[in-house]
Amino acid sequence: MGRTRMEAFSDAVIAIVITIMVLEMKVPHGTDMEALRPLLPVFLSYTLSFIYLAIYWNNHHHMLHMVDRVGGGILWANIHLLFWLSLVPFVTGWMGENHWAPLPTAVYGFVLLMAAIAYFILQLTIIRQQGPDSPLKKAVGNDWKGNVSPILYASAIALSFVHVAIAGALYILVALIWIVPDRRIESRIGR
Amino acid sequence: MGRTRMEAFSDAVIAIVITIMVLEMKVPHGTDMEALRPLLPVFLSYTLSFIYLAIYWNNHHHMLHMVDRVGGGILWANIHLLFWLSLVPFVTGWMGENHWAPLPTAVYGFVLLMAAIAYFILQLTIIRQQGPDSPLKKAVGNDWKGNVSPILYASAIALSFVHVAIAGALYILVALIWIVPDRRIESRIGR
Amino acid sequence: MGRTRMEAFSDAVIAIVITIMVLEMKVPHGTDMEALRPLLPVFLSYTLSFIYLAIYWNNHHHMLHMVDRVGGGILWANIHLLFWLSLVPFVTGWMGENHWAPLPTAVYGFVLLMAAIAYFILQLTIIRQQGPDSPLKKAVGNDWKGNVSPILYASAIALSFVHVAIAGALYILVALIWIVPDRRIESRIGR
Amino acid sequence: MGRTRMEAFSDAVIAIVITIMVLEMKVPHGTDMEALRPLLPVFLSYTLSFIYLAIYWNNHHHMLHMVDRVGGGILWANIHLLFWLSLVPFVTGWMGENHWAPLPTAVYGFVLLMAAIAYFILQLTIIRQQGPDSPLKKAVGNDWKGNVSPILYASAIALSFVHVAIAGALYILVALIWIVPDRRIESRIGR
Repeated sequence: MGRTRMEAFSDAVIAIVITIMVLEMKVPHGTDMEALRPLLPVFLSYTLSFIYLAIYWNNHHHMLHMVDRVGGGILWANIHLLFWLSLVPFVTGWMGENHWAPLPTAVYGFVLLMAAIAYFILQLTIIRQQGPDSPLKKAVGNDWKGNVSPILYASAIALSFVHVAIAGALYILVALIWIVPDRRIESRIGR
Repeated sequence: MGRTRMEAFSDAVIAIVITIMVLEMKVPHGTDMEALRPLLPVFLSYTLSFIYLAIYWNNHHHMLHMVDRVGGGILWANIHLLFWLSLVPFVTGWMGENHWAPLPTAVYGFVLLMAAIAYFILQLTIIRQQGPDSPLKKAVGNDWKGNVSPILYASAIALSFVHVAIAGALYILVALIWIVPDRRIESRIGR
Repeated sequence: MGRTRMEAFSDAVIAIVITIMVLEMKVPHGTDMEALRPLLPVFLSYTLSFIYLAIYWNNHHHMLHMVDRVGGGILWANIHLLFWLSLVPFVTGWMGENHWAPLPTAVYGFVLLMAAIAYFILQLTIIRQQGPDSPLKKAVGNDWKGNVSPILYASAIALSFVHVAIAGALYILVALIWIVPDRRIESRIGR
Repeated sequence: MGRTRMEAFSDAVIAIVITIMVLEMKVPHGTDMEALRPLLPVFLSYTLSFIYLAIYWNNHHHMLHMVDRVGGGILWANIHLLFWLSLVPFVTGWMGENHWAPLPTAVYGFVLLMAAIAYFILQLTIIRQQGPDSPLKKAVGNDWKGNVSPILYASAIALSFVHVAIAGALYILVALIWIVPDRRIESRIGR
């Protein structure tokens, strides 16, 4: 299988996930300011997930750009990642509708954590396939972002039960860390 | 990142937004003419949003056609635009279901305003990247459409609370202004 | 604008419309045979619309294949067609859920009629742009299918109020007429 | 019609089906562990269907890769397959929400069975069109997977009414059989 097709499929899935998420935002029944207020946590979780999915789309693209040949391993590692990303609208809706209650906020973090792990597995699978001189390995380098994110997610999951604001702050922090596209890979492609 | 991929992703998102909007039109329970009447404002807002999204798809394409290299700035300015467009089904449904009540009508205008601003920011980001001889800048020219639209949106938001028909008329007016594809850019591409 | 991009956008919209239609089929609450029975008319209308959209996708492709240059006229004629196709899930759901009641069945036919007219307008716009030696005009020939379909739709709309079975039969008849891909255009492309 | 376009349309439909399936997972109202428990069967059926659709996407691609010319036969055989795949979100939701009750579990198997038959018909149509030296025929070989799957599905349908766990085990078994990409075709493409 060519890389192009896996890329196209992944892009389509991420584009759909990022877009259908809006359907989890239920249209309010009232038409006054009171009706809008409970939408605030919904809107906040929507925005957060939108940014996360955009980051995944972007970094995923950069990573796949270094793949030449797609075998069964990479294919299924990629589908595994898409699986966790496909759950984002569900947990986003659950967390938003319940105004960031502890358990939904923790489950939201759990899905993000699993997506991060899936991303890491995909990265590892590609590096292994590329062999000792893996250009992806060189590009990724020490990968501090990839290492620190799961720790922050795990902390957020636990701290959701202390105060959800801490978890929320951690989710925003991870998004900020990643919002800068991975310049290491970018610069390597540039060469 | 190549322009092609950002184009493909944007096209996919806009195609999905324009299409899932129909899911916000709830199937009526009755089967007589009485059941159809409350659908009229829903249908009107659906049609309006459909046209708006088609205009965005079209002009967005013309604009991206002049981009050579996609950096982080353009990438995120583009995602920012897609974010506001992704909210169109939500506000369309809210405005339609509530028969163009003042607040939903104003919020509809707010999302259109934010999308217009996001479009403007994207345009500016591209022009800046292209430098002093920016072909997009020359093509856009004085950009009276881009300048007048936010003013009309802002007016519509305020006037929603006077009479929603005025706001509705303004939304239709902006759509009519834009429905003609941007011939300036088109002619420039032609050369 | 190149033909390719309008094709890609149209394909995406039709693919989404044909797929989200399933979301209008509400999951039944019961788990016995009784729960399945009311699904029969829903399933029938779903199948019918699926076939219609597949026909549109196919013929639309054949037609666009003969377009070289996309101007504003063709662009908006195409969006007009997509608009009516985008309403198919809505009327399919309404007709199915109400077990083919007269009014929903007639409205279903109305949307099909408008889509057929939109298709005809698109065809005419392309032929006009191609000028006197229009290859599409030669390929389409006398276009008996295009002429007879609107008449059958209009009859079905009226006859929905006599007996919905007649309307249903006419909808199936039109689908059968079109299910054979347009060999005239196909053979012309082959040359 | 070129193979590329049918491939693109099929990919889009499968990507949408696999992604909108999440919308059938209704966001729970509660926010405690009790609210999560009834989601387990929903999540299980979601995961199973996700894997099935990924398998179809993958094998479908491998098969289409051997097609040169797409005639009406292949076109409609392909749409027939997409039709059954499009029903997967519906039966997944029905089975999951009703905690794998016998009838929904059997109907789930029925849709899988019909998809398998549709896949087989598509394969046969391609082989027939390719003639006596069909490369697909050689690649498929004795096709034990294709032969054993319908038998397992049919057994699962019947055994749903004995115990749904048996049906569930059979569905998982078929998924495991197919999860390995079809190496026969792959190796043949490699040559």
